[in-house]
Amino acid sequence: MRYCRFMADGRAYSGILRGNSVDIVEGEPFSGITSMIRLSFPIDRVKFLPPFAPKKLWCVGRNYVGHVKELNHDVPEEPLIFLKATSAVTGTNDFIRIPSWAGAIHYEGELAVIIGKGGRNISEEDAYDHVLGYTIMNDVTARAMQGKDGQWTRSKSFDTFAPLGPAILIAKRLPKETRVVTRLNGRVVQDGAIEQMIFPIPRLISHISRFATLEEGDVISTGTPQGVGEIRVGDLIEVEIEPIGTLKNICAE
Amino acid sequence: MRYCRFMADGRAYSGILRGNSVDIVEGEPFSGITSMIRLSFPIDRVKFLPPFAPKKLWCVGRNYVGHVKELNHDVPEEPLIFLKATSAVTGTNDFIRIPSWAGAIHYEGELAVIIGKGGRNISEEDAYDHVLGYTIMNDVTARAMQGKDGQWTRSKSFDTFAPLGPAILIAKRLPKETRVVTRLNGRVVQDGAIEQMIFPIPRLISHISRFATLEEGDVISTGTPQGVGEIRVGDLIEVEIEPIGTLKNICAE
Repeated sequence: MRYCRFMADGRAYSGILRGNSVDIVEGEPFSGITSMIRLSFPIDRVKFLPPFAPKKLWCVGRNYVGHVKELNHDVPEEPLIFLKATSAVTGTNDFIRIPSWAGAIHYEGELAVIIGKGGRNISEEDAYDHVLGYTIMNDVTARAMQGKDGQWTRSKSFDTFAPLGPAILIAKRLPKETRVVTRLNGRVVQDGAIEQMIFPIPRLISHISRFATLEEGDVISTGTPQGVGEIRVGDLIEVEIEPIGTLKNICAE
Repeated sequence: MRYCRFMADGRAYSGILRGNSVDIVEGEPFSGITSMIRLSFPIDRVKFLPPFAPKKLWCVGRNYVGHVKELNHDVPEEPLIFLKATSAVTGTNDFIRIPSWAGAIHYEGELAVIIGKGGRNISEEDAYDHVLGYTIMNDVTARAMQGKDGQWTRSKSFDTFAPLGPAILIAKRLPKETRVVTRLNGRVVQDGAIEQMIFPIPRLISHISRFATLEEGDVISTGTPQGVGEIRVGDLIEVEIEPIGTLKNICAE
C-alpha cells in the first residue's frame, strides 16, 4: 500500500495510490488509515505534497562502496551519521532551488526508512519491527561547500534540498533486489542495489538507537550509491525505487 | 519575565518564575501567556521540565576565541553550524547519562536563542525581531568520539546531552555585560562574556536564514566560552546566565 498526501480542488487530502489514480482516505499511517470515502482522482489532476513531516532527518554518509570510492574516501568502520534540517523537505514535482552563491550542487538519490515505533537500544533482530515503511529522498548537497565547511549541516540543509516522496510504501521490508535508480534529464546516472549497502537497514536502526532514542516519524536516509553529479537550473532529476515510485524535481533559481 | 514548565502535585503546568516561587499561567510564550489562576508554588516543591520542545537545535561551533584556542583550532571565517538531535533535550535537575563506551564526555555551557518568528534571508538589522527569548543549554559532547567521527552529530546527540532551561527569559536582547558561568562541583570552570562571541547573535540568525528558513521554536545555541572539560558520574554541572537562571544537572550512569 502506497500512502500519499496531495492537493486537489484546493484542498489537502490523504490518499492511497492505485495505478494512475489516487483514492481519498482518512488519517495517516502512524495512527491509522481508514477508507471511508469512495472518491478518487486521476493522478494528473492532483498536486502531490511531501507524504509527511519528518520529526528528524537522520542521514548516512558513505554507505555504498562505489560512492565512497568516487569521492576518494575510505570505507567507514561504522555508520557515519549526520542530520539534515527538516525545513529542507519539499515534495515531488516541486522545485529544487539552486543557490547562486554555494558552488556546485549535487543530487544523491537515496532510500529513506520511516520509523513507525520509537525505541532505544534496538537490536538488529528487532529493527524491522520499528519500521513503518519506505520513501525516497534526494539528499541534495552543495558539494564544494560541504568540503569547505567540514560539518555537512549547511551544505545539506538549504531549503528544498530534501525532496521526499512521492509516497510512503507501507511495508516492513523491501524486496532484496530493490534498486535506487536516478535519472538526470532522462539519462540513468545512478543504479545501485540496496543489497550493496555497507551497513544494511537493521544495522543503521540499531546503531542510531544506541546513542539516541529513535522517535515515531524519524527518517533514516540510507546513503547514496555511485554516480553522484551536478544539477543546474533547468535540469530534471528523478529518483526511482520501483516499489515506491518516482521522485521528480526540476531545478530552478 | 521568565517562563517555565514544571510538575507539581502530579500535573504539568506553565509558570512564571518570581524569586523563590512560581505562578501558574495558561498558554505558552509562542502563542501567548495569560495569567488567570491566582496560584503559586514554592520552587522547592516543583520539578522543572524543559521549558519547551525545540523544533530544531541549531548549534554554533568555535564562537569564542578562548575556546577555539584551547582545542587548537583556527578562528573560523564564518559561523560553523551543526544540528543536535532534539531527542537529546532534558531539563534542569535531570540526570545527564554518561555512556560507558563513548570516551571522555565534556560540558559546554552556552547561551541559547529561541526563535519566536520564523523567516528567511533575515538581515542582521532585523534579527532581534525574530527572537522570542533566551535560555541556557549545556552542549554536552563526547569529545574523543567527536574527533574520530568527523561529523559531530553522534557525539553531541546522545540522549540527555542537551540539558535546556531552567526557564525562557522573554526578551529581545540581553544586557551587554551578560556572562556564561559554568561550575563543576561548585568550582567556576567557564566564565565568558557573551560580548566576546566571534559572531554575535544577529549575525548567527542572519547566517542560518540565508540557507534555511528559520522556524518558530528553533533554538540557536551560540557556542561555548573557554574552559570546557570532562564530567564524570557523580559530578554536579551548573551553567548560570544571571538574567535567565541556573541550569543544574547531575551526571549518572
